[in-house]
Amino acid sequence: MLPYSTLLSIDRQSSTPVYLQITNNMILQIKKGVIGAGTKLPGSRALSEQLQVHRKTVIKTYEELLTQGWIEQIPAKGTFVSKKLPEITPEKISSATNVPPAYPVQTGFRIESNTLLHRPIIKAGNLIGFDDGFPDVRLAPVEVLSRTYRTILQRSFQKKLLLYGETQGNPYLREVLADYLHQSRGLAISSNNICITRGSVMGIHLAAKIICKQGDKVIVADANYPAANMIFQQLGVQLLRVPVDEQGICVDSIETLCEEQSIRLLYITSHHHYPTTVTLSAERRIRLLQLASQYDFAILEDDYDYDFHYTSSPILPLASADTHGMVVYVGSLTKAIAPAFRVGYIVAPQNLIEEAGYLRRIIDRQGDLILEQAMAELIAEGELKRHLKKAQKLYHERRNFFCDLLENYFPESISFKVPEGGMAVWATFYQRHNLETLSLEAQKQGLLLGNGKNYDCNLQNMTRMGFASSNLEEIEQSIHLLQKVMA
Amino acid sequence: MLPYSTLLSIDRQSSTPVYLQITNNMILQIKKGVIGAGTKLPGSRALSEQLQVHRKTVIKTYEELLTQGWIEQIPAKGTFVSKKLPEITPEKISSATNVPPAYPVQTGFRIESNTLLHRPIIKAGNLIGFDDGFPDVRLAPVEVLSRTYRTILQRSFQKKLLLYGETQGNPYLREVLADYLHQSRGLAISSNNICITRGSVMGIHLAAKIICKQGDKVIVADANYPAANMIFQQLGVQLLRVPVDEQGICVDSIETLCEEQSIRLLYITSHHHYPTTVTLSAERRIRLLQLASQYDFAILEDDYDYDFHYTSSPILPLASADTHGMVVYVGSLTKAIAPAFRVGYIVAPQNLIEEAGYLRRIIDRQGDLILEQAMAELIAEGELKRHLKKAQKLYHERRNFFCDLLENYFPESISFKVPEGGMAVWATFYQRHNLETLSLEAQKQGLLLGNGKNYDCNLQNMTRMGFASSNLEEIEQSIHLLQKVMA
Repeated sequence: MLPYSTLLSIDRQSSTPVYLQITNNMILQIKKGVIGAGTKLPGSRALSEQLQVHRKTVIKTYEELLTQGWIEQIPAKGTFVSKKLPEITPEKISSATNVPPAYPVQTGFRIESNTLLHRPIIKAGNLIGFDDGFPDVRLAPVEVLSRTYRTILQRSFQKKLLLYGETQGNPYLREVLADYLHQSRGLAISSNNICITRGSVMGIHLAAKIICKQGDKVIVADANYPAANMIFQQLGVQLLRVPVDEQGICVDSIETLCEEQSIRLLYITSHHHYPTTVTLSAERRIRLLQLASQYDFAILEDDYDYDFHYTSSPILPLASADTHGMVVYVGSLTKAIAPAFRVGYIVAPQNLIEEAGYLRRIIDRQGDLILEQAMAELIAEGELKRHLKKAQKLYHERRNFFCDLLENYFPESISFKVPEGGMAVWATFYQRHNLETLSLEAQKQGLLLGNGKNYDCNLQNMTRMGFASSNLEEIEQSIHLLQKVMA
Repeated sequence: MLPYSTLLSIDRQSSTPVYLQITNNMILQIKKGVIGAGTKLPGSRALSEQLQVHRKTVIKTYEELLTQGWIEQIPAKGTFVSKKLPEITPEKISSATNVPPAYPVQTGFRIESNTLLHRPIIKAGNLIGFDDGFPDVRLAPVEVLSRTYRTILQRSFQKKLLLYGETQGNPYLREVLADYLHQSRGLAISSNNICITRGSVMGIHLAAKIICKQGDKVIVADANYPAANMIFQQLGVQLLRVPVDEQGICVDSIETLCEEQSIRLLYITSHHHYPTTVTLSAERRIRLLQLASQYDFAILEDDYDYDFHYTSSPILPLASADTHGMVVYVGSLTKAIAPAFRVGYIVAPQNLIEEAGYLRRIIDRQGDLILEQAMAELIAEGELKRHLKKAQKLYHERRNFFCDLLENYFPESISFKVPEGGMAVWATFYQRHNLETLSLEAQKQGLLLGNGKNYDCNLQNMTRMGFASSNLEEIEQSIHLLQKVMA
C-alpha cells in the first residue's frame, strides 16, 4: 500500500474540515501522478486506520472524490482512481508558442474618454474627520441582517429567490415598503407604485432616462448633488441652475424660467438640500406642485435623508400631496443602514414603474433578491424602525456636541447654521482661510476635510462636515486636529 | 404601581427575545397613554419580580428604551417615561384635509413608452420542464456562502466594506479573479484589467456604452441573445446580422461587411453560441482576431457558459490570444452559482476598465462589496472549483439522460445535436408541430416549453430546452408530459 499517512497529511489546527483536507491532498497526489490513474485505493476501514481518522471521514472523502469525478467505485471490486481524470486542459487557439502573450496595455480601438464623468470618487479612507455626511456603519444591524440572510438561504421553499425574478424587485419587499412609506411618509401607495433600485443613484438614473431625452431642459439647484448632474448631462439635457436660500430652492426663479421656456424636469433634494442641508418650506412645496401642473414638468424628489431629523418634525414629501402624478419620489435605505447594502426605491404612478422594470432589465437584469428579502423581513419585524431610532438619538447627540465645539473653537473662522437634520453641517470658512489649502494640509495631519470642490457650483470656501459617523471622542479628536491645521 | 404584569404580557413561545417583547409592549402602552409621560417606572428588581423574569432582562429592556429615547434615568431619583416622546408626527404640507389624497393612477406628464424594451421577462415559475438553460440552484453552495457572508460582516477590521468603496469592484475579488481567469482561461491579466459587474448584462451594458455611439454599426449573430440586442439598439446603433453555421458565426460574411462599411463592434457568444449552443472553431477565432485588427473593430466576447463543457476540452477565449487589445471579455458567476448572486466581470485593457468605473458610478455607484468579498473567499479557498466540478458532473449526466430520451421518444418530431457543453439543447420541432401552439398547450399541462419567439431572429419552430436545472426524475417526468402534449 502507498504511504497514505505521509501523502495525505492532516493539519488538525486548520479550519478546513479534515475530510476536505484529505480530499484536496488526494487530488493533488493524483494530479502529480503519485497516485496513478487506475490505482486501487484502500477500503475506508483500512485508510481510516492508517490516517487515524474516523471511518466516516474517509467515507465522506470518497463521496466527495466520487462526485468530483476523481475516483470510480466498481461494485464487488473496490474503489479506483479514474482512468479519465476530470481535469481538462483547455485547448489553445493557436499552438504557435507556449508562452502566453502579454496582455495589451491599451485598447487597440480608440475610445473617447468621457471627461464629464472624470471626477474624484470618494471612498472610505483611514482618516478620521469630516466626511460628506455618511452614517456610522459600526451601528448597522449586521448581526440580525446576516442571520436573516442565512435563514432565507436555508429555506428550501424560497429556492426560487436564487433564480431570475421580477425586474421591479422582490415582491415582498415592494409590499412591505409600500406599507412602511405610507406610515412614515404619508404616501398612499401600493406595491405597484414601487420599483426597487440599488440606492438613490440608480433611482435617479432610471427616472431620468425614462423622463428625459436629449435637448430637454432640466432645472437643478445651484449647488447640487454632483452625481445627479452627471446623470442628466450624460443624457444630453440642458441644465438650468436655480439658487437656494434659507427656505430651499427659489420657486420664484423656477416660475420665471417656466414662463420663458418649456421645462421637462425639476430635480430637488427637498428634505435636506444637498449640500446646504436647508429644508424646503411647506409653502414652497405647495407652490412647486402647482407650478408642475401648470407648466407640465415632472418633479424628481430625492429624499435621501428624510429619516434623520432632530429638532422639528419632518415635512412630508411633495409626493404625499401629489394628486396629479407630477412627482417621482426616490429614496434609499443606504443612509439608514449602510452604503454597502444598496437597496433603494422609486415611487411613482404605475405606468412609470413598469417602464423602470423594462429598463432595469438591460442594466443589470434584477436586484439582489436575497438581500431584498432580508431587508423586507427587517422592516416587517420592526428592526429598521428600532435601528433608526437608536441611530437618530446618537446622531442628535453628535450633532449637538459637534456644533458646540465648532462654535466655541472657531468663532472667527467658520460660520454655519445648526442643521435640523441629516448627517452633516454646511460650513463656510472665512476668506483668510483657503479651504483647498486647508484640505491638503489636513490630509497631511491625518484629518479628512472636504475642499468644497465637489458641489458643482461657484460657491467658495464652503464644505459639508459630516458628524454622524464619528463618536464623541472621535469628534473631539478631529476638532483638535482641525485647530492644529488652522493655526 | 401599575399592573405591569398585565400591561406587559410575555409570550414565552415567541421567537422574539423576552426583553424585546417587554420593550415593545412598554412602547405601545406609552404611546396609548396608559403609561403616561413623566411616570416613574419601578426599579429593575421590582419589575423583574412582578413580570417573573430575570433582573438582567429588565435591565436590558430599560437600556433599549433609553437608547430609543422613551425613558430617562435621573441619578438618585429613578427611571421616568420621557416628557418629550421620540415619536414624531410628520408635518403635512397642506392641512386642508385629513384624508390623504388617493395616489395618482398615471403620471401627469407624458412619458414615451419604450416599446423596444417591451418583451416578456422570463422569471422563475412553478412549472417543471425546459427552461432557457438555467443552473440547478438547489446545488448552489449557499451554506458556505452565507457562513462566509456572516463572518465578513462580523470582522470589525472589515467595517470599511460597509461604506462607499471602489466603483470598479472589491479589490480582493479583482485580484482573486485575475488569478482564477488566468488559470482557467489563459488570460494573462492583473486586477487592473478587471471591472466587477452585476452579471453579464451589466458587463455588456457598460462595454457597449463605452464603445458605441449613435449611428455606429454593430455586427451580431442571427439569432442572438435578445438582451444584448436591446442594449445595442437602445444606444441607437445599427445592427447588422450575420448567420451562424455548425462552426459558429460566419466569418466570411463578417469580412464582406467589413469591406463595404466601417464596423465599430462585433458581439459574439463564442464558447456556446446563444441560442444554438454551437462552439466557435479555433480557426474562426484566429481569423476574427485578424479581421478586428485589420478593420479596426472591437470584439465583445460574451463567454457566459465557458465553465460547462462535457466532451471535448473547452477552447480558450479569443481574449486569451488578443495581443492588439481588440477584445473586451465579459463573464459571470451567475451560471456557476445562481442567478440571484449577481457577480460578473469585464476583462479589458486598463483604459477601458477605468472608463467602466466612472460609468458605473452614475448607474448604481458600486457593487455589493460584502457579497463580492464572500465570492472572492469562495474562489480563493477552492470552493468555486469544487462546486463547478460537482455541477459539471451532474449536468453531464443530465445532458446524456435527456438527449437519450429526446432521441428515443421523439425521433420523428424533434431534431437536435447533442451540445458539447452548456445547459440547454437547441431543438428543431418538425413542421407539423407548431411550437407556439405546443408551448401554450404545454403550459396548460403544467409543463414549461419555450415558444421559440425570444431569439430575435426568423428561425421557425426552434427552441432551447434546458436540462441542467432538473434532476433525472424531473427530466423523465417532463419528457412524459411532452409526450402527452405532442400526442
